Amino acid sequence: MELMAEVLKITAGGKRIAILSEETASQIGVHSSDRMRITHGSQTVIAIANIAAHFPTNRIGLYEEISAALGLRGDETVQVELAQLPESLSHVRAKVRGERLRGQDIVTIVKDVVERHLSEVEIAAFLTALNVYGLNMGEAEAMSRAMAETGKTLNFGEAPILDKHSIGGLPGDKTSLLVVPIIAAAGFTIPKTSSRAVTSPAGTADRVETLCPVNLSIAEIKEVVGKTNGCLVWGGALELAPADDLFIQIEYPLGIDPLLLPSIMSKKKVIGATHIVIDIPTGTGAKIRNLTEAHTLASDFVDLGKRLGITVQCALTFGDQPLGCAVGPALEAQEALITLMGDGPADLREKAVILAGMLFEMAGAEDGRQRAENMLQSGRAERKLREIIEAQGGDPNVKPEDIAVGTQKAEVTADQAGRVMWISTEGIVRVAREAGAPKEKGAGILFKAKLGEAVKKGGVLFEVYAERSSKLESALELAQRLQPVVLSKKAEERMLLDQVPEKVTREKPFMLER
Amino acid sequence: MELMAEVLKITAGGKRIAILSEETASQIGVHSSDRMRITHGSQTVIAIANIAAHFPTNRIGLYEEISAALGLRGDETVQVELAQLPESLSHVRAKVRGERLRGQDIVTIVKDVVERHLSEVEIAAFLTALNVYGLNMGEAEAMSRAMAETGKTLNFGEAPILDKHSIGGLPGDKTSLLVVPIIAAAGFTIPKTSSRAVTSPAGTADRVETLCPVNLSIAEIKEVVGKTNGCLVWGGALELAPADDLFIQIEYPLGIDPLLLPSIMSKKKVIGATHIVIDIPTGTGAKIRNLTEAHTLASDFVDLGKRLGITVQCALTFGDQPLGCAVGPALEAQEALITLMGDGPADLREKAVILAGMLFEMAGAEDGRQRAENMLQSGRAERKLREIIEAQGGDPNVKPEDIAVGTQKAEVTADQAGRVMWISTEGIVRVAREAGAPKEKGAGILFKAKLGEAVKKGGVLFEVYAERSSKLESALELAQRLQPVVLSKKAEERMLLDQVPEKVTREKPFMLER
Repeated sequence: MELMAEVLKITAGGKRIAILSEETASQIGVHSSDRMRITHGSQTVIAIANIAAHFPTNRIGLYEEISAALGLRGDETVQVELAQLPESLSHVRAKVRGERLRGQDIVTIVKDVVERHLSEVEIAAFLTALNVYGLNMGEAEAMSRAMAETGKTLNFGEAPILDKHSIGGLPGDKTSLLVVPIIAAAGFTIPKTSSRAVTSPAGTADRVETLCPVNLSIAEIKEVVGKTNGCLVWGGALELAPADDLFIQIEYPLGIDPLLLPSIMSKKKVIGATHIVIDIPTGTGAKIRNLTEAHTLASDFVDLGKRLGITVQCALTFGDQPLGCAVGPALEAQEALITLMGDGPADLREKAVILAGMLFEMAGAEDGRQRAENMLQSGRAERKLREIIEAQGGDPNVKPEDIAVGTQKAEVTADQAGRVMWISTEGIVRVAREAGAPKEKGAGILFKAKLGEAVKKGGVLFEVYAERSSKLESALELAQRLQPVVLSKKAEERMLLDQVPEKVTREKPFMLER
Repeated sequence: MELMAEVLKITAGGKRIAILSEETASQIGVHSSDRMRITHGSQTVIAIANIAAHFPTNRIGLYEEISAALGLRGDETVQVELAQLPESLSHVRAKVRGERLRGQDIVTIVKDVVERHLSEVEIAAFLTALNVYGLNMGEAEAMSRAMAETGKTLNFGEAPILDKHSIGGLPGDKTSLLVVPIIAAAGFTIPKTSSRAVTSPAGTADRVETLCPVNLSIAEIKEVVGKTNGCLVWGGALELAPADDLFIQIEYPLGIDPLLLPSIMSKKKVIGATHIVIDIPTGTGAKIRNLTEAHTLASDFVDLGKRLGITVQCALTFGDQPLGCAVGPALEAQEALITLMGDGPADLREKAVILAGMLFEMAGAEDGRQRAENMLQSGRAERKLREIIEAQGGDPNVKPEDIAVGTQKAEVTADQAGRVMWISTEGIVRVAREAGAPKEKGAGILFKAKLGEAVKKGGVLFEVYAERSSKLESALELAQRLQPVVLSKKAEERMLLDQVPEKVTREKPFMLER
């Protein structure tokens, strides 16, 4: 059917959508979400029908994505007809029914996600079904490969290529800022791509950005790694696994993360990693709640690695309190630098040495832990971080006090004496975000007492940093309400966790960090 | 944050969506799918963020739904801030995790669906989770009530109010066109609302529309029922259960139908039905494949009815071949009229008498079947249909031959003699739709031989009707390929159903008819 195209001067966010009135849709025989084949001259585009009650009849509204693909200049006529359902949709439907997908089915789905042939509704159903049924190892492998193959790849030459990854969920976890220079200082290649915070107060990319630019092109990354053996860059804009970027946009509002394994492993595959240590922080307030869960996930990572030709070891680490004392991009970068310079909190130093030591041994070295210690103590790791900062365009001579933290600052004190018996990581995340993190990089929390430490009445539990006084105030109010640090004397006050039905059921916090 | 509103002169199909650039979104701290509170003067609207790569910064694009609600005239400034997640979303997430929902949770979800506070992605996840986990009876009741309470209701006065409903999936099922006048002729109230075809060749509304208008307002329906005791109208535009209309739009592309029971029962609740007979066509080509499945569904309908204060009886009916001989809106209306006039296929007549008889007995009459027979034989049912046609604005003196069927017509013949041993209802649906049904009302199929009947070599199996010769041709080609009517001699030719992996796996046909 011939329709007048109405070129809408706006994008649909990449989606291939066209708008019809109810009447026109019924004439063509399309229902909402049906596919249409739109032809103009020699160009044809498949678009998903969006039916609007009050759109003019005999017209078709085309967002920029489609009008550009058709080469439309103004309002010209186009041919519109009902198109067949894509094959991938039948695989999506099969997964919704609980069927096992073959590798080729998954490739078809991932390709159609990247090429925008599946609608958000269809992707949401697919991800929900995956979340309910889980993926078997064959599906996880196919998904990892398909996500890797539909994106760009990076080649850093000779093996081994090492990498370190945390599944996330632990505030204050700035370990990558130590592990990367330790490994690179020993002459191994470790091209670390990382993410920005979504639901946390800081991602590795947010932390590093207070030291140097992280938004590098693929060519620039190669140059940095060529010079220094390592890098600490943001992976988000590199289109390394574009399908995953689209999946995350749907997973985020739903609070689900069914593709944790393939998402991480596909991104390791595209940078050519041969040996990876995966950190699984485990604790009541972490993403993984107990060791049983952690062991299952860990052996899945190892198995999936084998299928993909990558050697994986997992570290199940203590996740019952934030790592180190600093939470928030700038505060954490400061703490990482201090630790590399020989000072800093013992738990952070220990974790970095353990993870780096595991990587050294995976790459064939003996006594990896000692080697990691040596890199730290000799100052070689610090010098390596400064090399990387310089190569990425930052100041190699940066001092900890040069890193700008929030000028608005207040202390949260103990209203009675006691030992710290519990720290709510969830509460800390909320307070740090209320203070402005991760957007306002100077915002965050600095602990003055951690688990087991004694605090006097009026003693400082933690400091809150913010860039604006209004944010500081609301963060302090929230801290007052949540009481994220609990002293031993207060144990008897927390016997009642919640009341039903008087209290509103609390949503389990959702952590989406890659 | 203050942003310049860009009023987009287009609707988002009812969705409450606003568009931001990546940079502006990051400044406000919203991610795609987050909610924003948009304020202009004294008006506040909650909108879902859609982040577009190339949208201008410091602006917010507002579709007509939102700019109208805010009373914006042109490009004015608005206040935009991150809003909390709606409570309903936490219930959606709970269902995705497999938790049981309380009645109040379901009410909250349904309200937010109707008020467009949940996005399509979130509704898709909810429906997918419901499809996987199923609803227990408490959830089905809450869902039925919530869907009924968020829409308009109709009051037809004194009980009993009778109704008849088919769960669909059987081509040629025009039984409502007979049952409604039989019941109404006996003095009972039967206000029948029905649907148009979505995946079938004809819905009851499509059939009736060839006799008289079906798109009546609530006031008009009341007038028709007041005059004649019955009606045969389209329920789609009445907003009787607007949540269900929105659910169906999401279910359709996904090929799922998790709300079959509450969807049907909510619509019966809003018209005040007290006694309903529900037809469950059962057969290998029908929506319900076997009697086990049918019995489970039937007892669920009865139980749900009890909870809603509605007396329900189910009829499990033969669904292994189309009902009657006609498939397609006009052909079926013709056949229904002929049957009411005393002629017509025996299976259609029998089914109408059975279902009407059940309804009579449910309403307290003895020997319901005989009563239904009497209404047919005396001509009272025919006269009643003509009354209803007239009251709805059609010609009460319409003769079967006045109903316009397709002028393009061809026969499909047997290439050898035999008895009809199998009719693929799925194949018939596809051929009838290829011929143009339901959009082209004169298109369809007329059987000349049904199960068990003998056909000579070259004898006619069925006729295909179309309004356009191109449609007729492609329908005939499809019929040739699908061979939807199988003669006994051919049994040995159909031993091999499919080949793996040579043949493409066939999608199980999806039927979404209410």
